[in-house]
Amino acid sequence: MRATKTPTKLADGRELIYYDEQPGVDRSVEDRRELGATQTSSEIRYDVLLDQWVVIAGHRQERTYLPPTDQCPLCPSTPDRLTEIPAADYDVVVFENRFPSLAQGLPALETTSGPFVRRPGVGRCEVVCFTSDHEASFAQLTPRRVETVLEAWTDRVRELSQLPGVEQVFVFENRGEEIGVTLSHPHGQIYAFPFVPPRTLRTLRSARRHHDQTGACLFCAVIEAERSARVRVVGETPRWVAFVPYAARWPFEVHLSARRHAPDLSALDDEERGELAALYLDVLRRFDGVFGTKMPYIAAWNQAPVRVDRDLAHLYLQVFSIRRSPGMLKYLAGTESGAGVWINDIAPERAADLLRAART
Amino acid sequence: MRATKTPTKLADGRELIYYDEQPGVDRSVEDRRELGATQTSSEIRYDVLLDQWVVIAGHRQERTYLPPTDQCPLCPSTPDRLTEIPAADYDVVVFENRFPSLAQGLPALETTSGPFVRRPGVGRCEVVCFTSDHEASFAQLTPRRVETVLEAWTDRVRELSQLPGVEQVFVFENRGEEIGVTLSHPHGQIYAFPFVPPRTLRTLRSARRHHDQTGACLFCAVIEAERSARVRVVGETPRWVAFVPYAARWPFEVHLSARRHAPDLSALDDEERGELAALYLDVLRRFDGVFGTKMPYIAAWNQAPVRVDRDLAHLYLQVFSIRRSPGMLKYLAGTESGAGVWINDIAPERAADLLRAART
Repeated sequence: MRATKTPTKLADGRELIYYDEQPGVDRSVEDRRELGATQTSSEIRYDVLLDQWVVIAGHRQERTYLPPTDQCPLCPSTPDRLTEIPAADYDVVVFENRFPSLAQGLPALETTSGPFVRRPGVGRCEVVCFTSDHEASFAQLTPRRVETVLEAWTDRVRELSQLPGVEQVFVFENRGEEIGVTLSHPHGQIYAFPFVPPRTLRTLRSARRHHDQTGACLFCAVIEAERSARVRVVGETPRWVAFVPYAARWPFEVHLSARRHAPDLSALDDEERGELAALYLDVLRRFDGVFGTKMPYIAAWNQAPVRVDRDLAHLYLQVFSIRRSPGMLKYLAGTESGAGVWINDIAPERAADLLRAART
Repeated sequence: MRATKTPTKLADGRELIYYDEQPGVDRSVEDRRELGATQTSSEIRYDVLLDQWVVIAGHRQERTYLPPTDQCPLCPSTPDRLTEIPAADYDVVVFENRFPSLAQGLPALETTSGPFVRRPGVGRCEVVCFTSDHEASFAQLTPRRVETVLEAWTDRVRELSQLPGVEQVFVFENRGEEIGVTLSHPHGQIYAFPFVPPRTLRTLRSARRHHDQTGACLFCAVIEAERSARVRVVGETPRWVAFVPYAARWPFEVHLSARRHAPDLSALDDEERGELAALYLDVLRRFDGVFGTKMPYIAAWNQAPVRVDRDLAHLYLQVFSIRRSPGMLKYLAGTESGAGVWINDIAPERAADLLRAART
């Protein structure tokens, strides 16, 4: 790791970690707020019809919602205003979410019976601030800063994978009020889940079947088929390829895939991180360029689970937007949220054309 | 069927069917518009990673979006303004969608190769108008009108199940601009899918496993467990029960389940339809009553597929809302849309309390 890591504690005992691009920065400033201990009462409940876990987090209903800019909790602290980050400036900083959906040390639950199965919502939720500049966005970061973010993510994936009960670490960024983002300061999140999420289970089931039939990796096969077809490829480096998937669900969706069969972020080497930073920025700038407006988007890392099927998994970033035109959003309604059938009004080849032509 | 059914054709050849509560209404008025034939170029593409079909409907990008009230295409026609419904008034009317995501008679597609599998988007999309009153809502219908809607749905399920290539008929209502509804006139939709949708596949897989282990119906077991637990039951008749499911995904979610093991709407008898109408209205009025505002909601019928697993399926209506407080919506962001993990900020027992206490 090129960055300098400094773990600290906030006033209520939550962990906060600085990742500094220059060595020797003084990180001894303390959190001077008076904070009560956070209350977490999460549980996970098993949906016996869908064979999936759902997180029930009743305590989160009162969390901070779109504070004015001068009350942003992710900006550095000033003498007049104390935020979540005690320091006067930072490069990249990670801290435990104050309103977590999943946490450590939860009390045991009463036993239930019949079809009703639940467990404590064990895990951890972290916030990752990409820059101290409130008005910036991920797409405006320097390549060096993206590499620092990648180093921080990698470090967190390694550490969170060691926590008791964690089965998958999910790294993502939500951007834009249109998808419900409550804080506009450039930041992402990390969820350490106590189960393997449905998307991962499904894709690894497909990968297992393909491997049983062919001996090869399904993700690698798709990547090479997309590279041959060209028509949906948006960008490429020797070690990465960005393409709109053949059966894209979202108006604009790109998979940024490692060409090498790597299971997760911790498997990347320096060259892969460097090329990834450049292509990641290129893709996000194309998203903003398509309609000349800041696109709402979700950027979600697809990684191997902590314990199972690590050989089957293949690292990729999924970036997608619900914006389908300058004035229209894609909503999830009856077919998607009710039946689970996605209807995409923009052909993937058309989306790839628009992204390739976008001003960056 | 108590209603009188009169099939007609619109100017471009699409079918329109009146379901009248009184016999002998003259339905001979013709559609006097000059309409070009609708263009449909839908295809379904196989997502090889998720093992699911996605509908690609590039032609739908230009469809009608929130027209002013005086241009509503679902109101009856007047001498001055011709709409989708030629008659001057109607009770319930069903017609083929002018911008369908799925259609009959599509041309064959060029063969593709490798991981890229696609087929024509065969099926049918219909619009169901519940009342000619633009300002009404489903919750304001009379019980008699709800029974007429149920009869129309049942008739359409029977007919659409006969169409070539149709594997499941999906009946639903989207209500509210918050979930992207483009027309505010009270109406629902029917999609006849050329595949069994993911939600149905998943629930029937769970039901098959339960049946193999116990010889009994999983849905029946859940219904009886909810009736015994009481704490999440919102309403009940001798033949139906409405409850918030134990692992609810949405801030407000109710399953309105037939107590008898019935596969789909066409299996209901008159008593079941009558009781359903009353409880359906009660549930929707409680949704509107929780915050004293018109709730955005999705109402989706879960029915048996056309050809397979009809003995395993158990009819229920799923009604859910993304509103979690008077001023806040539940958005699907990274965890839900990226990882497939739902996080619900309202405990199901709390939602049931609020629905039971709602003014109706």
